Amino acid sequence: MDSQRVAATYWVETPYPLEQAAEIIAGEQSTGTFTKVPGESDALKREHGAVVEGIERLEDHDAPSLPGTVAPPGHDGRYHRGRVVISFPLHNFGPSIPNLMSAIAGNLYELQQISGLRLLDLQLPEAFAQRYAGPKFGIEGTRRLLQVYDRPLLGTIVKPSIGLSTEELAVMVEKLARAGLDFIKDDELNANPPYAPLDQKVAAVTAAIERAADATGKKLMYAFNITGDWDELRRNHDLVVGAGGNCVMVSILSVGLPGLAHLNGYSEVPIHGHRNQWGMMTRSPHLGMSFTAYQKLCRLAGADHLHVNGLDGKFYESNESVTASIKACTEPLFGGYKAMPVVSSGQWAGTAHATYNAAKTADVMHLAGGGMLAHPDGAAAGFESMKLAWEAAVNGVTLEQCANRHPVVRRAMDKFGKAGRL
Amino acid sequence: MDSQRVAATYWVETPYPLEQAAEIIAGEQSTGTFTKVPGESDALKREHGAVVEGIERLEDHDAPSLPGTVAPPGHDGRYHRGRVVISFPLHNFGPSIPNLMSAIAGNLYELQQISGLRLLDLQLPEAFAQRYAGPKFGIEGTRRLLQVYDRPLLGTIVKPSIGLSTEELAVMVEKLARAGLDFIKDDELNANPPYAPLDQKVAAVTAAIERAADATGKKLMYAFNITGDWDELRRNHDLVVGAGGNCVMVSILSVGLPGLAHLNGYSEVPIHGHRNQWGMMTRSPHLGMSFTAYQKLCRLAGADHLHVNGLDGKFYESNESVTASIKACTEPLFGGYKAMPVVSSGQWAGTAHATYNAAKTADVMHLAGGGMLAHPDGAAAGFESMKLAWEAAVNGVTLEQCANRHPVVRRAMDKFGKAGRL
Repeated sequence: MDSQRVAATYWVETPYPLEQAAEIIAGEQSTGTFTKVPGESDALKREHGAVVEGIERLEDHDAPSLPGTVAPPGHDGRYHRGRVVISFPLHNFGPSIPNLMSAIAGNLYELQQISGLRLLDLQLPEAFAQRYAGPKFGIEGTRRLLQVYDRPLLGTIVKPSIGLSTEELAVMVEKLARAGLDFIKDDELNANPPYAPLDQKVAAVTAAIERAADATGKKLMYAFNITGDWDELRRNHDLVVGAGGNCVMVSILSVGLPGLAHLNGYSEVPIHGHRNQWGMMTRSPHLGMSFTAYQKLCRLAGADHLHVNGLDGKFYESNESVTASIKACTEPLFGGYKAMPVVSSGQWAGTAHATYNAAKTADVMHLAGGGMLAHPDGAAAGFESMKLAWEAAVNGVTLEQCANRHPVVRRAMDKFGKAGRL
Repeated sequence: MDSQRVAATYWVETPYPLEQAAEIIAGEQSTGTFTKVPGESDALKREHGAVVEGIERLEDHDAPSLPGTVAPPGHDGRYHRGRVVISFPLHNFGPSIPNLMSAIAGNLYELQQISGLRLLDLQLPEAFAQRYAGPKFGIEGTRRLLQVYDRPLLGTIVKPSIGLSTEELAVMVEKLARAGLDFIKDDELNANPPYAPLDQKVAAVTAAIERAADATGKKLMYAFNITGDWDELRRNHDLVVGAGGNCVMVSILSVGLPGLAHLNGYSEVPIHGHRNQWGMMTRSPHLGMSFTAYQKLCRLAGADHLHVNGLDGKFYESNESVTASIKACTEPLFGGYKAMPVVSSGQWAGTAHATYNAAKTADVMHLAGGGMLAHPDGAAAGFESMKLAWEAAVNGVTLEQCANRHPVVRRAMDKFGKAGRL
C-alpha cells in the first residue's frame, strides 16, 4: 500500500454487483455525488478519488440484512457479500482522526445501494504516528508503576456501581489495597456524581491508598473515572494527579476520540480507556465497526488500557471475538502503541484459564467486580483466588487441581462456577 | 415524571419475560452486577436504583435479532418485544451529557439476555438546561443573519466534495453568491485538507463572499467545516470569525457531543451540525439509537442547524423517518432549543413538494449539491428552480404546473426527475 494512502477493509452486502457497489462506496466517500457535477474532472478523480484495491467474494445471501435497500431494476433476489478494500489519499483529510472518520465512515452506512456494511480493519500511514503520540505508559509503563511483572494485573471495579458514600468507598478501597490488589477502577456509571463529588472522592480514596501503601509497601493503582465535558477533563485530571493519584479513566465514546487525544496531550498518569456504548456500534454483524479497527484509533489517541470484555463473560460477545481483541491491542502499531487489554465483565478466578489458554499471554489486566468482592470469604480471598488460578493456568495446572490444593479457589468455584457462563 | 429523574424509552427484544429483562437493564445500569455484592443494601437501591416505569408489549418474534443472546433454560423459542421506560435518578450522574450516555447506553447493548435494544427517546430534567445553553442562533437567529424569512433557506454543498483548489472554490462560491443563494457548506469530507488548508480557504472564500455582497447587497452564509481535534476547533473557529465568516460546521460524531458543547461555549456564529457516521448507530432497527433521542442531545450541546437527510433522497431512510426528524428538531425542548433542520442528500427542485407536504413547514434549510450545481443551465438556474418549486409547494401549486410556467423547473425535472428516487 502507498504510504500516503489509508486503506479501509469493509464487509459489504449489496443487491448490486460487488464491483459496482465498491465503486459507489469509493465515489460517495471521495469525489462523487449522485449526479456528475461540473469540475469532477478526470485529473481531480485521479488525484483525490478513493480506489477499490481488492474484492474478496463471500457467499451470497437471499435477503437484505438492513432496511431501506433499493435493488437495481431486474434484481435476481441475491444479495452479494464480500470483503472490499478501499484506499483513500491521505491528502484528502490529512492525519486527523476526526476527519478520517468522516472519510472512511461518513455517510456510507446510509447508502441505499448497500444492505450491510461493516468497517473491519484500517491501515494508516506513518503520518498518523507523527500526529498522535499514543499511549505514554501502555503495558510496560503500567507494570513499572506497579512493580508487578510476572502475572496479570489483578483488580476490581467498585461495586455497587453507584451509591457508596465517599467514606464507605475509602474504607472499601483501603481494605482492598491492604489485601494486595493491584488495581481498582471506578465503575463507568460513576464519575463525578452530585452525591459524591470527584474532589471529595479523590481526597478520600488517595488518602486511603497512601495509608495502605505505608503499611504494605505497595501502592495500588486506582483509575478515577474523570469522564465529563471537555473542560472538566483537564480539571479532573489535575485534581487526581495533584492528590497523588496514579490513573485516570475515561469513557472513550462519551468524550470522543478527540477528547481522548487531548487528555493524552497533558496526562501524567496512565489513561484507562473504557468502551461502554461500544455495543451499539458493533453488535450487529451487518453494520458498524469491528474492534480491530476501532482499537487502533483508541491507541493512537492515547489509551494505555483498553477494555475488551471477558472470556466466558456476562456479555454477548464470543470468546473468539474477545481473544481477537486481546491480541489486537498488543499487536504493534507503527512499531509500538501497545495498550494493555483489560479483561472484564462477569470475571472471577475460574475465567483465568480460559483467558490464558485463548490469549497465551499474562500481559492483561484482569478485573473482577462481583467475582472479587462477593467471594464468600471476602475480597482478599477473591484476589488470592484469582492470583492462584492464574499461576495454575500459566503453569499448566487445571482449575480443579488448583482448587484441590487451595480452598480459597474451591470456595470461588462453589459460588461462581455453578451458574454456567456467568 | 419526577423532575429529578431521566426517563429513557427503549425498544427491547428478549428471550426472557419482558418484566425480567427490564429489571436486568435497570440493574445493570445502576446498582447491580452479575452477583449480589456487599453494600448493595435496600436503602442504596431505593436511592440510586433505576426504576422500570412502564412496559408496552409488542408482538413476539421467533428468532433473536442480534447474535450472542443466551436464552433462559426451557425457553419456548419466543423473543418478546416491547417498549420499556426506565428512569434513572439524576443524582447518579448529574446533568452531564457524557455521563448520561454511560448510564442510559453504557454496556446495555452487550447484555446476553437481550436480543435487540434501541434507545427510542429521552426525557431530561430541567437541570440539563441549566448546564447546556443550547443553540445561540437556531432558526430565528439564522434567518435574522440572512434576512430571509418567507421561505426555506436554500443552498448547496461544495461539489466535487474534495479536490477543488482554493482558487477554484472561491470562483465557484462568488458565482453562487452572486446568483443569490442563501447558504453553502463545505462537504463533510472536506475540512482542512493539506492540499487546500483551511486558512487559505477561509481567506479566499470570505473575500469572494464579500465581493458578491458588495454587488448584490446580500451576504451568503458559508459553513466552513472546522472539524478537527480539540485545539483545532478553537483555532479554526477563530480563524473563520476573524475573517468575517458567518458559520462553522462540525461533524458531531467526529468531535463528540462534548466537543460540540465546548465549541458552543465560545462560538460567535451558528454551528452547522453534520451527522455523518450516524447511520452506523441507527440503520439497524434492532440496535443503537433513534434520532428522536440523539437530536435532543445535539440541540442541548448547541447545534444551530442539524442534518436530517432528505425526502426522496439518496439514502436508505424512509420519508416517514425523515419527516419525524424534521419535526423533532423544531419541537420545543425546555421551551426552546430549536434547531434548524437541514434537508439534504439527493435533493433538487422536485423534492420541495415532498418536503413541504410532509413537514408542513418552510422552516428548513434545503440543500442540494448535484441538484443545484448540475442543473443543465447552471447553478443559478438550480437555485431559481428550487425557489420556484418551494413557492409552488407552499401555495398548493403542483410541480407539473410550476414546470409549465417556468422552463427552469422543467429543465430540472428533465434532468433529475427521470431517475426515480434520486
